[in-house]
Amino acid sequence: MSDVVSPELRRLIAGRRRNFMLDQPFYTDQAVFRADLELIFNRHWIFVGVEPDIAEPGDVMTLSIGGNAILICRDDDGAIHAMHNVCRHRAARLVSEEKTTVGRLVCPYHAWTYGLDGALLHADHMGSDFDPACHGLRKVHIRSLAGLLFVCLAEAPPEDFDEMARIVTPYIAPHDVARCKVAHQIDLIEEGNWKLTMENNRECYHCSLNHPELTASIFEYGFGFDAEEKDPARIAQRRNYDLMVEDLCAAWDRSGFPSREIGHLDDWVSGFRIGRMPMDRDGESQTLDTRIACRKLLGEAKEKKLGDLSFHTQPNSWHHFMSDHVVTFSVLPLAPDRTLLRTKWLVHRDAIEGVDYDLETLVQVWRETNLQDGRLVGLAQAGAASEGYVPGSYSPETEGQVEQFVNWYIRRLAMLAEP
Amino acid sequence: MSDVVSPELRRLIAGRRRNFMLDQPFYTDQAVFRADLELIFNRHWIFVGVEPDIAEPGDVMTLSIGGNAILICRDDDGAIHAMHNVCRHRAARLVSEEKTTVGRLVCPYHAWTYGLDGALLHADHMGSDFDPACHGLRKVHIRSLAGLLFVCLAEAPPEDFDEMARIVTPYIAPHDVARCKVAHQIDLIEEGNWKLTMENNRECYHCSLNHPELTASIFEYGFGFDAEEKDPARIAQRRNYDLMVEDLCAAWDRSGFPSREIGHLDDWVSGFRIGRMPMDRDGESQTLDTRIACRKLLGEAKEKKLGDLSFHTQPNSWHHFMSDHVVTFSVLPLAPDRTLLRTKWLVHRDAIEGVDYDLETLVQVWRETNLQDGRLVGLAQAGAASEGYVPGSYSPETEGQVEQFVNWYIRRLAMLAEP
Amino acid sequence: MSDVVSPELRRLIAGRRRNFMLDQPFYTDQAVFRADLELIFNRHWIFVGVEPDIAEPGDVMTLSIGGNAILICRDDDGAIHAMHNVCRHRAARLVSEEKTTVGRLVCPYHAWTYGLDGALLHADHMGSDFDPACHGLRKVHIRSLAGLLFVCLAEAPPEDFDEMARIVTPYIAPHDVARCKVAHQIDLIEEGNWKLTMENNRECYHCSLNHPELTASIFEYGFGFDAEEKDPARIAQRRNYDLMVEDLCAAWDRSGFPSREIGHLDDWVSGFRIGRMPMDRDGESQTLDTRIACRKLLGEAKEKKLGDLSFHTQPNSWHHFMSDHVVTFSVLPLAPDRTLLRTKWLVHRDAIEGVDYDLETLVQVWRETNLQDGRLVGLAQAGAASEGYVPGSYSPETEGQVEQFVNWYIRRLAMLAEP
Repeated sequence: MSDVVSPELRRLIAGRRRNFMLDQPFYTDQAVFRADLELIFNRHWIFVGVEPDIAEPGDVMTLSIGGNAILICRDDDGAIHAMHNVCRHRAARLVSEEKTTVGRLVCPYHAWTYGLDGALLHADHMGSDFDPACHGLRKVHIRSLAGLLFVCLAEAPPEDFDEMARIVTPYIAPHDVARCKVAHQIDLIEEGNWKLTMENNRECYHCSLNHPELTASIFEYGFGFDAEEKDPARIAQRRNYDLMVEDLCAAWDRSGFPSREIGHLDDWVSGFRIGRMPMDRDGESQTLDTRIACRKLLGEAKEKKLGDLSFHTQPNSWHHFMSDHVVTFSVLPLAPDRTLLRTKWLVHRDAIEGVDYDLETLVQVWRETNLQDGRLVGLAQAGAASEGYVPGSYSPETEGQVEQFVNWYIRRLAMLAEP
Repeated sequence: MSDVVSPELRRLIAGRRRNFMLDQPFYTDQAVFRADLELIFNRHWIFVGVEPDIAEPGDVMTLSIGGNAILICRDDDGAIHAMHNVCRHRAARLVSEEKTTVGRLVCPYHAWTYGLDGALLHADHMGSDFDPACHGLRKVHIRSLAGLLFVCLAEAPPEDFDEMARIVTPYIAPHDVARCKVAHQIDLIEEGNWKLTMENNRECYHCSLNHPELTASIFEYGFGFDAEEKDPARIAQRRNYDLMVEDLCAAWDRSGFPSREIGHLDDWVSGFRIGRMPMDRDGESQTLDTRIACRKLLGEAKEKKLGDLSFHTQPNSWHHFMSDHVVTFSVLPLAPDRTLLRTKWLVHRDAIEGVDYDLETLVQVWRETNLQDGRLVGLAQAGAASEGYVPGSYSPETEGQVEQFVNWYIRRLAMLAEP
Repeated sequence: MSDVVSPELRRLIAGRRRNFMLDQPFYTDQAVFRADLELIFNRHWIFVGVEPDIAEPGDVMTLSIGGNAILICRDDDGAIHAMHNVCRHRAARLVSEEKTTVGRLVCPYHAWTYGLDGALLHADHMGSDFDPACHGLRKVHIRSLAGLLFVCLAEAPPEDFDEMARIVTPYIAPHDVARCKVAHQIDLIEEGNWKLTMENNRECYHCSLNHPELTASIFEYGFGFDAEEKDPARIAQRRNYDLMVEDLCAAWDRSGFPSREIGHLDDWVSGFRIGRMPMDRDGESQTLDTRIACRKLLGEAKEKKLGDLSFHTQPNSWHHFMSDHVVTFSVLPLAPDRTLLRTKWLVHRDAIEGVDYDLETLVQVWRETNLQDGRLVGLAQAGAASEGYVPGSYSPETEGQVEQFVNWYIRRLAMLAEP
């Protein structure tokens, strides 16, 4: 697929300066956007949803990844399948709803009928030479990582996903995502390139100025510290924070909730980072009052104060797992300057709204935080698209994971663009 | 004009596989769309309307064919003219209304004044060197085929149009389109490539699942039959149908309404097909109760049950002529994924709404059918534009005219792309 | 920057025929539009507003010129600065409001803080190697020409601007723009190429048919006369008009309001034309009743009847200065077929709405005239974009300044496109 990489894009990739933002075309150019879709989103494991989205046999969900219309369903044996949402006869989109439940997949055009595993079961008027076995729906690779659904559109998906899954499953599994339900979903369209959405996610330098709701529970020290700090009071605070993290992680580890940070954000093809951090004040959950939003705890959780297990993957997701709820984020590029951020809030499947949880309490922190971030992404896009833009340097103290995202991205492009 | 045909398009044309849908770029690509406009819509006879659209001297209608703004008018002698709707001075569009009536064509910018034949009659301040005779409106070829208006933007239009007109005029003339009025018009924008609109029109495989109103009058057997049918009852039904068609056609022929099918859908430049078919139930007209919608019959019609004379032309029209009304369809491409379908319902010019016909009864079958087809075209476009698309094969039993349309299209491109 | 000029554009430039409209691509093509932005709008002095837009220290205005987001502000010493509105850190747009007042420029993303002269004053967490002096906002050239603000995005702006300023300042200065206030502003988006907006402004051939409000005060003879006129009455009228102009200009010159026309519309890089003309009827101002709209006269004006000082600049502005008010027009391209026309009405800063002037009376003539012109520009764009378009010739009597605009444009492109 190196034909989507023009000599000019090759020059841009080669000319990237470490620890600086990317050159303008990476945020604005149609050709770069096509390369992003083809080399990044069509070649890597993309987070698209959770098992509770298709909890029962016959459940179907649809979505688009770049130019790919995909459907994901659970068959009568409980197995999960992903397929191109395109009839093999006259190309009609098979399922138009975002979610539905069906017995079989029947095309609305000429009634071609497929099983939930994609096999063609029936087609009228096609003559005796026609072989249904050659006309099943085209399959897409899909994996459930402890309940999180990742698809890969490539024929040969990156192999290190399994190793990542082996490492992170012990962290995530105790939260038992498969036994959750999706309490709420918000699709936010941000007016910026998907990489600006990712860069924004990968630092908290902007949090204190912009996120009053989120910073209720987040410790400032978790996201960078000035190495040249001279104020003794702040140095002491920081030391206390580090000791607290060490104590809490050890305790969580002992009670079956692994916590220590592991990260391969830019040195693995399936780049990721996972780790559990304490939260401020009451420290139970990412809510405005920092207490749990749902009193039915998840999975194996016995206590409310399990911190915030955060899981980040390249190129398109991040997740927060707490004792009472989970929030997952999926980034899907729509255009060079438009990106879909899909956020799902999960609680225990037996939790009852109004009894066990109040929906507004559950969603308000990240709903507001996303809106604030969406505005910032829009401002960054406006500037990055302006002719006066020159790439700025990332903060060595607080923007290291931004650099790791960009470095991962450039390395992947460079590798896949090789002739 | 072969410079609109890139080497890549040439490869796509050469690589087309008979009896299969086209490759993806034919439905999605801007360069193919430009070639479609330049080689198909700018070089062939395009159906644009009917004589009753401009019934009286001074009547003007305007429309766009691709990038061409056109006006069509009737002069004081009753002659019909088609011209580019662009002032020769500073390029202003002369007429903005879709329909109007004027004495002369006066430019709204600087009042340059043209006759209804396009001659420049008056222009102020242009000095003594200026020759009005060199500044008439640019003309466009136009023909009335028994009242149906076709324009051709090429300097040298396809010559076999006259031969087609000679063949089909005896079929259409008895319905006397020129003595009709346009009782209703609906412009529907379909979210699909114009060729998907045409492909959809050229088969009825999808009718039973999608068109409850249309199938009230249409016989299933008119649109394909399973050659391997083994059910003796269905085989007998089919035989009865064939005998009925033979009897009715013979009777219609004798009474001055030629009926036997003639078709040159893919072997003539001006590809067409015409033929009269019986209708189901009361069999009078394409209405919900299959009875006439207008009690004032057309032209030479003496009886209500004249079947459905259907006339199809490449690349952009189809028509149904019955004893009481006519429905015409004109397909105009707007973008690779957007198409205008313009439908006109014609009745006898002396028929009075509310007395001789009820408008809702007249239009409901095709209004609903068009909406249903528009939705199907949108679904097919969504699938054909998806990366998972692979061209499917047409049914050998019921999609033969789809193949003829696509074959005509590919042959015309191939011919006109020759260096 | 000649790499924005393709061989095809070079051919179009070379093939331009004097006294004829431009070839189609100049009005429709994306590549020509990019060249227009890069070679015309990024290289010349562009009129963007007036000193009263940023009357006080801390006042900021923002605007976009093509792909450039710009901010213009007045510092605490009263000096005016123009800068790219892009933070040097992560590219966020610094100021989003069209107008605001600030102490310093604080980025909404990570709180980087700049002075009103663009210097970076503060940035957290950037480490010891970071030099704030290298991270000030990027500056843009700006000049106040007797209160009219022009910016130039080039590193080396055209040098003849100073000579133009020397010539026209004596004409404009007596109206004392800096001591005005902006009483009203209207942003009108015209559906046409920016050059059609300019061509429309540069002739009054279309006025009598289209501008009933404007022609209340404008003399027909100011805008072209038929050299072959044979009607003795009209010839006499014209002679009387010429004598009146001569008398009035001499009187205005004596009272400190220079009037005689000077023009270098196509022979200077900073092309311009200035001159004062009498007005019809009461002749005081461009209002519907031709009397002053504001009873507080401007600057050094002692009498109401000072005619209409009109000042035109290439590529994007025109202005009318009268005894009581000023109207300025700034043309900013948005797309090949979309243009922003920004109009500001200025009165004496001490004038009180409802007491000294009625806003409706002040703005109605040009508000209506702009709407009428916008419609004509849209019609011309529709025609120029149609395949039937052929460039028409300009009237030798009344469209000389249209030709001068187009000639200036082509000469500038040709010069800057040289390898």
